[in-house]
Amino acid sequence: MTGGCVGDLSERDLVARIQQRLPPAPPWLLVGIGDDAAVVEPERNRVEVLTVDALVEGIHFDRAFVPPDAIGHRALAVNLSDLAAMGAAPRLALLSFALPPQLPLDDFDGLIAGLARLAAQHRLHVIGGNLTKSPGPMMIDVTVAGTVKRRQAMTRAGARPGDDIYVSGTLGAAAAGLRMLKADQKASTTEVTETDRGHGSFENELPCPPSGTVSSVLELCTSRFLYPEPRVRLGLLLSRNRAASAAIDLSDGLADGVYRIGETSGVGAVIDADLLPIDPGVRAWFTERGLNPVHEALTAGDDYELLLTVRPRAGRRLDAARRGGGVALTRIGACTASRTVLLREDGDERELPRAGYDHFR
Amino acid sequence: MTGGCVGDLSERDLVARIQQRLPPAPPWLLVGIGDDAAVVEPERNRVEVLTVDALVEGIHFDRAFVPPDAIGHRALAVNLSDLAAMGAAPRLALLSFALPPQLPLDDFDGLIAGLARLAAQHRLHVIGGNLTKSPGPMMIDVTVAGTVKRRQAMTRAGARPGDDIYVSGTLGAAAAGLRMLKADQKASTTEVTETDRGHGSFENELPCPPSGTVSSVLELCTSRFLYPEPRVRLGLLLSRNRAASAAIDLSDGLADGVYRIGETSGVGAVIDADLLPIDPGVRAWFTERGLNPVHEALTAGDDYELLLTVRPRAGRRLDAARRGGGVALTRIGACTASRTVLLREDGDERELPRAGYDHFR
Repeated sequence: MTGGCVGDLSERDLVARIQQRLPPAPPWLLVGIGDDAAVVEPERNRVEVLTVDALVEGIHFDRAFVPPDAIGHRALAVNLSDLAAMGAAPRLALLSFALPPQLPLDDFDGLIAGLARLAAQHRLHVIGGNLTKSPGPMMIDVTVAGTVKRRQAMTRAGARPGDDIYVSGTLGAAAAGLRMLKADQKASTTEVTETDRGHGSFENELPCPPSGTVSSVLELCTSRFLYPEPRVRLGLLLSRNRAASAAIDLSDGLADGVYRIGETSGVGAVIDADLLPIDPGVRAWFTERGLNPVHEALTAGDDYELLLTVRPRAGRRLDAARRGGGVALTRIGACTASRTVLLREDGDERELPRAGYDHFR
Repeated sequence: MTGGCVGDLSERDLVARIQQRLPPAPPWLLVGIGDDAAVVEPERNRVEVLTVDALVEGIHFDRAFVPPDAIGHRALAVNLSDLAAMGAAPRLALLSFALPPQLPLDDFDGLIAGLARLAAQHRLHVIGGNLTKSPGPMMIDVTVAGTVKRRQAMTRAGARPGDDIYVSGTLGAAAAGLRMLKADQKASTTEVTETDRGHGSFENELPCPPSGTVSSVLELCTSRFLYPEPRVRLGLLLSRNRAASAAIDLSDGLADGVYRIGETSGVGAVIDADLLPIDPGVRAWFTERGLNPVHEALTAGDDYELLLTVRPRAGRRLDAARRGGGVALTRIGACTASRTVLLREDGDERELPRAGYDHFR
């Protein structure tokens, strides 16, 4: 069946549509979807790592420019990123969706496809869930569990003065991607309502990317925003080698991450603006639009990279993670004994601007 | 701080408000609230039972007549009821709330208080969660995990022809309670808009309970609706004795439960209308309003009782559950070798009416 809306089907039919897209149950899943709860055999000699995260339409995504498979991908990716920050291997997920009945079935299928694809990549199995109607926005809630050896779990608490601070990948591309998608959306909406033009309502808006041409920066940025890659492999390699003294994922931005590790570990930090890994094309894109690339890289909330601290003598333990983690690791500063968090830029030191995404203020 | 709305506080402040209401962390919680994820030591020689359920404002509750602590209670109770049906001992929960920023802080505190009270009763620990804004309705998502000995987990799959069918507690009181609360709400709303009376818009509505008097039936029913008691202790005793061949909770109604056990176990059933445990006051309340108490008891969705099947010779294994379960167990019928599910009433047998709550149709 294609066409139609989720409201045309029963909850049971929708669950069956999800099950069709899942691989066969692993041997440790003793009771799967279809009973009051799932029953799971724990993994021996490992501790469990659990987290939950929600995507709410209108807060975390806009269906106007985020395709369904990207919503499904993201709903799982944000959770896998949390597991990565703990050094845990993903194992299972429970889904809880509140969906408007008028949601097209094709969108439902796309959502599941995006989530199932990422789950398969990380050998994570969906063991159960809940579907319900929403009288308003779509809400996608995912709980994941993974495992790690007890002494290998990474936390935010282990940093010491003198530790080096590293970040994975590059910063700011996802934030640029979001701006590009929004601008593109505004532009196409504007085409429909031609009469709105000339009112100057876009004075403060960003120019749209050149229409008809596909720039590689646009592709990089929009794909980084729509399909963030959780750094699961990197997290696993770091925890196995005990290379990191503390770690956090950058769901709420780099500055927020530095502050949180600082608070939990009881250290300060100096971050060097010149060392921040910003893609040259992304840097140029920000600069052309009058935006400060360093500020964007520090405060943007959509980089699901890992921030970690490393003992000065443990640099060699990073080697395996560097080789096998599939992503660059860049030293961007160091922890200090003071309780201040500073940004070093142009020979000057000032307080690191803190503008992490806060879900309530 | 009292007064104000959740939107006045940061996510971190709201999390701190939750933590204040939680007991000290148990020794098995290695990393609790405040890191990227929680880290938990598994319980030895037991398997894990996991489930998730969501309450959505406007679908599962109406803030006009459900107080905040009842919302919190219910959000956890529906999940504990699933654990009870599997015979599992509750262990931990993860919360995910999407809240309108204008939600009064007092309501937030009430929600947490209701949830924390029930958690403490069942020695369940809240190990983490997520808070986000909702641009629309309130959504309360709770994931719980419990444990059970591997061979003691109850499922829907073990019933055989000839097994007796039992139900815990009484049926229909919660559904009556919901009707009472709605009628009461309508009555008080009508008082405000006097001019709406006489339009005949309430022709199909139920009469309100006598205002000013507090009947014991009203108290019983509204409390059963607002504060359902998950049958955790009963589930534990049943699973320890391996007294039940199959079990399910009645979140979607008795008839739905009988059909689901029948489908999963590959059996039919005959339910005897005369045996259904309906409180006499509740029976009278339905009858006075022209409603069929048997139909209500079969199809009402808010009884979080357990339905179980028991081998004919295993009646004595029920004794411990009867004595210690804190709730009555009533035989209401038996499983059959046919694949039909019948209701025996007034010497007649007909198909059991199936009108369980479906979240999408």
